[in-house]
Amino acid sequence: MKLPPKSSFSEWFNEIIFMAEIMDVRYPVKGLYVWMPFGFKLRREVYGHLKDLLDREHDEVLFPLLVPESEFMKEAEHIKGFEDEVYWVTHGGKDELDIKLVLRPTSETAMYPMFKLWVRTHADLPLRVYQVVNIFRYETKHTRPLIRLREVTSFKEAHTVHSSYEDAENQVKKAIALYKEFYDSLCLPYLIFKRPDWDKFPGADYTIALDTIMPDGRTLQIGTAHNLGNNFAKTYDITFENVKGEMEYAYQTCYGISERCIAALIAIHGDDRGLVIPFRFAPIQVVVIPVLYKDKDKIQIMERATKILDTLKTMGIRAVLDDSEDRPGAKYYRWELKGVPVRIEIGAREIEHNTFVVSFRDEMKKETYPLKELENLLKKIEEYDSRLRKKAWENLYSSVIFQKTLEDVKKQAGEGLILIHWCGGEDCGEKIEDEAEVSLLGELLEKTEDLEIEPGKCIVCGKETALIAGLARTY
Amino acid sequence: MKLPPKSSFSEWFNEIIFMAEIMDVRYPVKGLYVWMPFGFKLRREVYGHLKDLLDREHDEVLFPLLVPESEFMKEAEHIKGFEDEVYWVTHGGKDELDIKLVLRPTSETAMYPMFKLWVRTHADLPLRVYQVVNIFRYETKHTRPLIRLREVTSFKEAHTVHSSYEDAENQVKKAIALYKEFYDSLCLPYLIFKRPDWDKFPGADYTIALDTIMPDGRTLQIGTAHNLGNNFAKTYDITFENVKGEMEYAYQTCYGISERCIAALIAIHGDDRGLVIPFRFAPIQVVVIPVLYKDKDKIQIMERATKILDTLKTMGIRAVLDDSEDRPGAKYYRWELKGVPVRIEIGAREIEHNTFVVSFRDEMKKETYPLKELENLLKKIEEYDSRLRKKAWENLYSSVIFQKTLEDVKKQAGEGLILIHWCGGEDCGEKIEDEAEVSLLGELLEKTEDLEIEPGKCIVCGKETALIAGLARTY
Repeated sequence: MKLPPKSSFSEWFNEIIFMAEIMDVRYPVKGLYVWMPFGFKLRREVYGHLKDLLDREHDEVLFPLLVPESEFMKEAEHIKGFEDEVYWVTHGGKDELDIKLVLRPTSETAMYPMFKLWVRTHADLPLRVYQVVNIFRYETKHTRPLIRLREVTSFKEAHTVHSSYEDAENQVKKAIALYKEFYDSLCLPYLIFKRPDWDKFPGADYTIALDTIMPDGRTLQIGTAHNLGNNFAKTYDITFENVKGEMEYAYQTCYGISERCIAALIAIHGDDRGLVIPFRFAPIQVVVIPVLYKDKDKIQIMERATKILDTLKTMGIRAVLDDSEDRPGAKYYRWELKGVPVRIEIGAREIEHNTFVVSFRDEMKKETYPLKELENLLKKIEEYDSRLRKKAWENLYSSVIFQKTLEDVKKQAGEGLILIHWCGGEDCGEKIEDEAEVSLLGELLEKTEDLEIEPGKCIVCGKETALIAGLARTY
Repeated sequence: MKLPPKSSFSEWFNEIIFMAEIMDVRYPVKGLYVWMPFGFKLRREVYGHLKDLLDREHDEVLFPLLVPESEFMKEAEHIKGFEDEVYWVTHGGKDELDIKLVLRPTSETAMYPMFKLWVRTHADLPLRVYQVVNIFRYETKHTRPLIRLREVTSFKEAHTVHSSYEDAENQVKKAIALYKEFYDSLCLPYLIFKRPDWDKFPGADYTIALDTIMPDGRTLQIGTAHNLGNNFAKTYDITFENVKGEMEYAYQTCYGISERCIAALIAIHGDDRGLVIPFRFAPIQVVVIPVLYKDKDKIQIMERATKILDTLKTMGIRAVLDDSEDRPGAKYYRWELKGVPVRIEIGAREIEHNTFVVSFRDEMKKETYPLKELENLLKKIEEYDSRLRKKAWENLYSSVIFQKTLEDVKKQAGEGLILIHWCGGEDCGEKIEDEAEVSLLGELLEKTEDLEIEPGKCIVCGKETALIAGLARTY
């Protein structure tokens, strides 16, 4: 089995998931996949870091999966958004259930009846909790591991309650800042959009999203934060006694990240040889390979390799020694596929000169250093991560194009992310979406230097506007 | 709200779960509960340790929740054991599903179709994986948080595949050894039984279980390990090429622990004042309380308390400083309820003498030490854990009684665990269960000195036997 070239992105992605042992896609139900041991180790590292970031200001909790129909059916907008795609549990054993149960598609309707009980006064606020759980969507579209699933196995959802609309607004900003920090450490690039009203989270006042651009030019939503205002508070009667002693509806936010963060990690950093993983998240960070030729210096080479392995472990690095009988080429292939960031080789020449050979997964060029330099390896690792980050951001920017007319948008549609002037009106937005067969990602926030664009005319109605919108075909 | 005395165990348990903020029991579906922030922190510590133990020889994986009816219905014994208590998903959105889906009650039927694909030759064996997941049982009996649930949120299930029956047998022994190590570190006592044939895991050759005794005298099963022989391998066609090059059915085991481990921790160590938690698992390990009297030496006391807090944190201890306005009594009450193992107090006298006052959650007596002794606190903590362990084992042994006649068993039934001579026959076993209204836990394995009993006569048929069985009312 050979990995297809990354230029055939869809085939490459499906194959690498399986060949690198991230997931087994052969589970006998559409849209459900199995996390294999190596994939789960990657998930542990990525979600471990996400949890560390959240733990600074959130408490972890765990709510039930099953939501009774009665609670689920309370918030009208929310129901409309989800009722076509929820799974229903109707029977227990041979009995039909009195009250049907929904498998949570997200947990607002499970949590907020409890928040009503937890929140009494302003002293209880802000309330900030999160959980990492499995959620379910009855997807009728084409499913794909890590990207579009019927069981999202790794949904990190945070939910907060505040005493003012302003606090909720600030929390959305803090959530976006946290997500940026998370993706920065994954060396992944993103753009930030305020979703148009017709594409916001069902029941929210507004939705801010992080999108990244996949190698095939389609965008992938990799995080969202929603200001819920007091819409849900009114439905679920979440009130608090404010400082004046009056009862008031609370303000809420929620924000989520799914295993799409791992899809982006794989898709954006990977290459024709396999995975490429930022150092801190790699299940195996360094592989030490003894290079033997006709058993020359075999004992010294094995001793040296083992000593290097031990030193690396002492440094807290997840290292392995590949002392299998395979030829070096086969070893390289195996560890490149798994995205091991650093390969260290020791052969007869290295024994002779007291050196080691190192190569990094992205550059693949071999460099020789004196043995005593081993402890300086961590500095080089920072450079490795920086290279991944830089390359990923460059790729993202090279996939963004600014267009001034709807005709040009139509020609470009599907090839990366298109920025346009947009008046902000729903009619103009829908016309663009329909005619160019793209999604309007919303207003571009946080325009970095590379994305500075002067005000201009809406590409549909011609109205002057400073608002820049993103368009793309999306996953 | 006041905690009932532990002598009223059932009320005490229900209240402490809620008052100590382990779980919120007000979720609007029977048998489903919410892990609150403090409870979840305890869960993190306990399951973190369990995972560490498993990681030595197992890989963590994650399989889907939903099992198609076709796979679920393959193993006849297994179906019989579970079909009355599984939840069925029958609809997605407004569509009826073509193939009904079961919410896993345990994951054999999800995993083993994949094991068939994973296992090819003896070189793939042993295969040892585990996952920590939510499982579902449509319980019609009385439900209770952490003990009998419809959503078991924290099921650790391990599954292994081997090339011989002997290896599978050894794996069951290793599983029991691992579980003993786990419960030893939780300072919890247990007895080990081989379940009678009519109470083994559906589809298994035999089941070994760990039981502990709850304060009300009923036993709680807190871990099981099953030798599956090749029963499931034959159903799911899991074969491997052996060293001779022949295809052979594989041998399997599985073993599980649920959040009952936390139920036992709470029930067995707790007292009239609240939780008592072994040091390593306590979400908060030390509380530092400044004791102020008319603001005398306030600045020095606060400085000293802060310095002690910082020292403890440097030692890697999870410590908090309670600088609230509450009176000392209120502070004691709060932290005792939460089971904080160590309380350190600093008042004017301690400033004067350069000392600190320490008291441990179990003994509640105050001892004064010179400040420089602070770093020796860890030794005292070992003694604290040893006291909890010793007391718990003594309580267990004091709840075990040996009886020679069925009449005496009937009188004693429900008051702890009864040991008897049993011939091993199903007829005699069923007669005991029916007449004394107890469960036969099976053959007692690993008889410690306190449980040495000479051979004697089966209490039903009078046949000579060396087999000692346990009887109890169970949770």
